[in-house]
Amino acid sequence: MPTVPMVEYDQATGLVKEVFDDILTTRKTQRTPNFWKTLASHPPTLARIWKESKDMMTPGRLDLLVKEMIGVAISTTNRAAYCINAHTAAAMKQGMDREMLGELMSVIAYFNTVNRLADGYQVEPDIFPPLE
Amino acid sequence: MPTVPMVEYDQATGLVKEVFDDILTTRKTQRTPNFWKTLASHPPTLARIWKESKDMMTPGRLDLLVKEMIGVAISTTNRAAYCINAHTAAAMKQGMDREMLGELMSVIAYFNTVNRLADGYQVEPDIFPPLE
Amino acid sequence: MPTVPMVEYDQATGLVKEVFDDILTTRKTQRTPNFWKTLASHPPTLARIWKESKDMMTPGRLDLLVKEMIGVAISTTNRAAYCINAHTAAAMKQGMDREMLGELMSVIAYFNTVNRLADGYQVEPDIFPPLE
Amino acid sequence: MPTVPMVEYDQATGLVKEVFDDILTTRKTQRTPNFWKTLASHPPTLARIWKESKDMMTPGRLDLLVKEMIGVAISTTNRAAYCINAHTAAAMKQGMDREMLGELMSVIAYFNTVNRLADGYQVEPDIFPPLE
Amino acid sequence: MPTVPMVEYDQATGLVKEVFDDILTTRKTQRTPNFWKTLASHPPTLARIWKESKDMMTPGRLDLLVKEMIGVAISTTNRAAYCINAHTAAAMKQGMDREMLGELMSVIAYFNTVNRLADGYQVEPDIFPPLE
Amino acid sequence: MPTVPMVEYDQATGLVKEVFDDILTTRKTQRTPNFWKTLASHPPTLARIWKESKDMMTPGRLDLLVKEMIGVAISTTNRAAYCINAHTAAAMKQGMDREMLGELMSVIAYFNTVNRLADGYQVEPDIFPPLE
Repeated sequence: MPTVPMVEYDQATGLVKEVFDDILTTRKTQRTPNFWKTLASHPPTLARIWKESKDMMTPGRLDLLVKEMIGVAISTTNRAAYCINAHTAAAMKQGMDREMLGELMSVIAYFNTVNRLADGYQVEPDIFPPLE
Repeated sequence: MPTVPMVEYDQATGLVKEVFDDILTTRKTQRTPNFWKTLASHPPTLARIWKESKDMMTPGRLDLLVKEMIGVAISTTNRAAYCINAHTAAAMKQGMDREMLGELMSVIAYFNTVNRLADGYQVEPDIFPPLE
Repeated sequence: MPTVPMVEYDQATGLVKEVFDDILTTRKTQRTPNFWKTLASHPPTLARIWKESKDMMTPGRLDLLVKEMIGVAISTTNRAAYCINAHTAAAMKQGMDREMLGELMSVIAYFNTVNRLADGYQVEPDIFPPLE
Repeated sequence: MPTVPMVEYDQATGLVKEVFDDILTTRKTQRTPNFWKTLASHPPTLARIWKESKDMMTPGRLDLLVKEMIGVAISTTNRAAYCINAHTAAAMKQGMDREMLGELMSVIAYFNTVNRLADGYQVEPDIFPPLE
Repeated sequence: MPTVPMVEYDQATGLVKEVFDDILTTRKTQRTPNFWKTLASHPPTLARIWKESKDMMTPGRLDLLVKEMIGVAISTTNRAAYCINAHTAAAMKQGMDREMLGELMSVIAYFNTVNRLADGYQVEPDIFPPLE
Repeated sequence: MPTVPMVEYDQATGLVKEVFDDILTTRKTQRTPNFWKTLASHPPTLARIWKESKDMMTPGRLDLLVKEMIGVAISTTNRAAYCINAHTAAAMKQGMDREMLGELMSVIAYFNTVNRLADGYQVEPDIFPPLE
């Protein structure tokens, strides 16, 4: 049950409509995701986060498939259901198949395992030189 | 301050020495990391986790650089200091430079932002068909 | 699907009924929330947590609206769905409107972003004098 | 670097001294742990949490060793360094040896692994009847 | 909504069928849980995690009831709904009754409280000698 | 041990110097915090996060003291040491005294307690009408 009513595309005006149109054009889709329809309840947050999303979810030194898989890894570690769902679908669009998903999940599980062992035993960092 | 005394390479015998030798050979290094020296206090766990590590940290459908960057993303989200340190160094060995690290950190921060917004507003999942 | 059957008001006796009556009186409501009906399956925990709730959720040096907004911030960071829902409703009762909620969510998202950057880069604390 | 100066035993007066004395007597020790010396900066919180501690860290339907091991498991999952340290020491006092610690750590790591897999794949709960 | 279609027992072949049969025999049940049916979408992960599960969820220096209660404690701290559900049911099978569950929940809540206080006040570890 | 060398004020040029100057002016200080000196290793992230910080950490419908206390609450829940330290100091600058800190910590601990109980018992949300 969402906290606030969502703003549907047909109800959008002003800044909200502008952002919605940019989302649909940028993502080449005709369906506004629930996330953005919800943020629209507070237009400055909608605009701020959408700008961030556009800046981030674009190929840079990391390609989009890698970024989306990192999105799945973080959302899983944070147990953020909406984002697990959305970024898994987005990674598939970028070419992740079921075998890659299986390997990704296995790696996510592995890192969560070693994170706990290192913390639980209070292991002290190995010394590495700082990154040049 | 670690919970248990570490087992140094020179003290290792039996199963522990076997695993240590395998670590040094597999990783082409002469220095046993603190993590493995600590797990050596409980040989069955040392052997189990090292086997897992060998299975996971090998190129598969995801290459090693991607896996190490996912390791940085998860360890950062979990705030696991030892692993942040170790996997950042390992990703650098696989070719991550400071600019890629900057982009990675920025993406990690972004996903943690949207995870919280989706949860806080209780946004309901968009419907996607299950992965074929 | 709850782990244990809830104790309805009509079924309550002894210590449980006493606590339920105190909840309804203190909160000026006629509906016992699911949280307390569930804790009633273990009366000492019900009594202990209700006492804590009464001690905490009362105006002190921080007023109630601030406390409820902190409740939303923490429950969101913990992704605790029941509490996100309950404390958002409670903050509204104390005067939070949709614009304040938008600003609150935006601030929650921001702090989660900088938390991860500081951890991921292993930034060392600035030195401040301890609080006098 | 602690946020507030700690209250040393010699400086304690009134409610703080009363609680400190109760801690030393109850725990049969002569050293006040840093945790309680820090909480003493806000006497009502010191008194409230110490009362809770006394209520909880006592044998009930679960014995003390089990409770302390649960403390290690939760503090590790939360990466709370002070508590990992303190509850590991306390569990040792209750009889946990290094082999039990190894098994505990291994089990902690395992549960963190399956938690992530179940979340990441969005597995739906199996249906069990509620606890009678 | 699960990410991938589950593999039902009747559809299982090869390695997947082998693991399913081992699960049903080991656990003395006729119903394959959703968790394993989902992992079956990536057979190597299914086999790896099932092996781990068999190694861990067996009486050792810690008995099974203690391990399952630790499973409830960690899954609750991680808010992993599927696992909270499954391990609560499994702990009941091992003899946990509603009163023990109440005490367990109360202890889980308590440790999460002190974890936050120790972190929030930045309390420095007491010095203990390392575990012999 | 930070991951990358920090950029000191004297070494800053171009975009980095511009942001540093804006930080010092906006915050009326002469000392660049480690956080910003570290982000300077990746100028676009420095600029992006500083812009966000300026947008967020300004009085709006929530005043600055409330925002900083929310920063302490979230950073404590996330156990992000750098930010716990920085936002506690910042909240003090806005007028938080030791008693308010004590009440804040107590409330943080309380919400983390009830979050776990609601999750652990799998309590279902009470129904509230969506926020108008």
